[in-house]
Amino acid sequence: MDFSPSLLRLYFVMGSQDCAGRDPAWVLEEAIAGGITLFQLREKGSSLTLGETVALGRRLKAICDEHRIPLIVNDRADLAMILGADGVHVGQDDLPADEVRQLIGTRSVLGVSCETPEEALQTRNSGAEYIGTGAMYATSSKPDAGKPVGPAAVEHIRAEMKSCPPIVGIGGITAANATPVIRAGAEGVAVISAIASAENPRRAAGNLRETVETTLSNR
Amino acid sequence: MDFSPSLLRLYFVMGSQDCAGRDPAWVLEEAIAGGITLFQLREKGSSLTLGETVALGRRLKAICDEHRIPLIVNDRADLAMILGADGVHVGQDDLPADEVRQLIGTRSVLGVSCETPEEALQTRNSGAEYIGTGAMYATSSKPDAGKPVGPAAVEHIRAEMKSCPPIVGIGGITAANATPVIRAGAEGVAVISAIASAENPRRAAGNLRETVETTLSNR
Repeated sequence: MDFSPSLLRLYFVMGSQDCAGRDPAWVLEEAIAGGITLFQLREKGSSLTLGETVALGRRLKAICDEHRIPLIVNDRADLAMILGADGVHVGQDDLPADEVRQLIGTRSVLGVSCETPEEALQTRNSGAEYIGTGAMYATSSKPDAGKPVGPAAVEHIRAEMKSCPPIVGIGGITAANATPVIRAGAEGVAVISAIASAENPRRAAGNLRETVETTLSNR
Repeated sequence: MDFSPSLLRLYFVMGSQDCAGRDPAWVLEEAIAGGITLFQLREKGSSLTLGETVALGRRLKAICDEHRIPLIVNDRADLAMILGADGVHVGQDDLPADEVRQLIGTRSVLGVSCETPEEALQTRNSGAEYIGTGAMYATSSKPDAGKPVGPAAVEHIRAEMKSCPPIVGIGGITAANATPVIRAGAEGVAVISAIASAENPRRAAGNLRETVETTLSNR
């Protein structure tokens, strides 16, 4: 697919473990209605088998297709290929970005989590379409997220890396604290619980999207 | 690759977590010298990142290539493809066998763990080259292995499934208890700790191989 940095405006990351017991398909539908621009399936720490994850992924893929929202799969390139997803997102402890690029080819989107300029520089050979940087703020959705690096990390990576891929901030972001992330140079924000565990995911997504767009138009 | 059931004679399954602190490459070299016929990389519960697992996998693949021992990768088809492995082995909670088959194609080997005839029958669409059945006996290498099903499970699956793929028994097998597994109709035995944690992996493999061959020649 053709990747545009504007797809990072509001990047919704979710698995069944994040939905407060509600149907992930419903949560995704609501999030899309609220204005998310990209979706990542991140099934982690749930009780689903991989077979059940494939079945869930197929349901969510159909929803994404219907609304033309690209689907990225976290960590497992094999699952991404089985689902016919648009791309793969890897962290520093996952399969190396350049290996995943070789595997999925240049027509698929590759995203890489990077906290520091050093990590960002190491993704160069992979030609990652975007970098996810965080945690921006303290978060409970990702127990292994480590200490927040704050919006300054976005500025830092952009300053140190020539022709830096677009950056999306992640970790503890809400409509109330998204503005500094965008001001620091991120193309958008990625969220899990701010949408997935919101009482009204549609409204939560709408508020986040509006905050991002307003901040961008004044940047 | 062309899969022959005789590759199942002595199937060595191993990851760095199984080697009692020794270099997995050394353990594999010794196991090959002792007579293993097939190798599965099963990196599970270790502290290696996936990047480190790729690096380890490359070292072990080079050893397998040198000695013409096929390399199967446990669970992750993406890792198998990155390593250029000969096949993938999946359990009941891993990616569904028929999905993996679609992904890796018919030139790669697909193995599936099945405890019961029902599970074995479900692998039909995948055209699995072999079935792994166990645990034959109590085992400590695989904490999630469940209660032993015993060699009778091999007979049971073969009796219930017409044109059953070749079966390899796994779980708690040593040279001292391998004979009933082969007598029950298995083409061979798969072992982890009997070789990987043996003081002398080469001798352990040699004893196992000899037991399997002797039992087969009298079957």
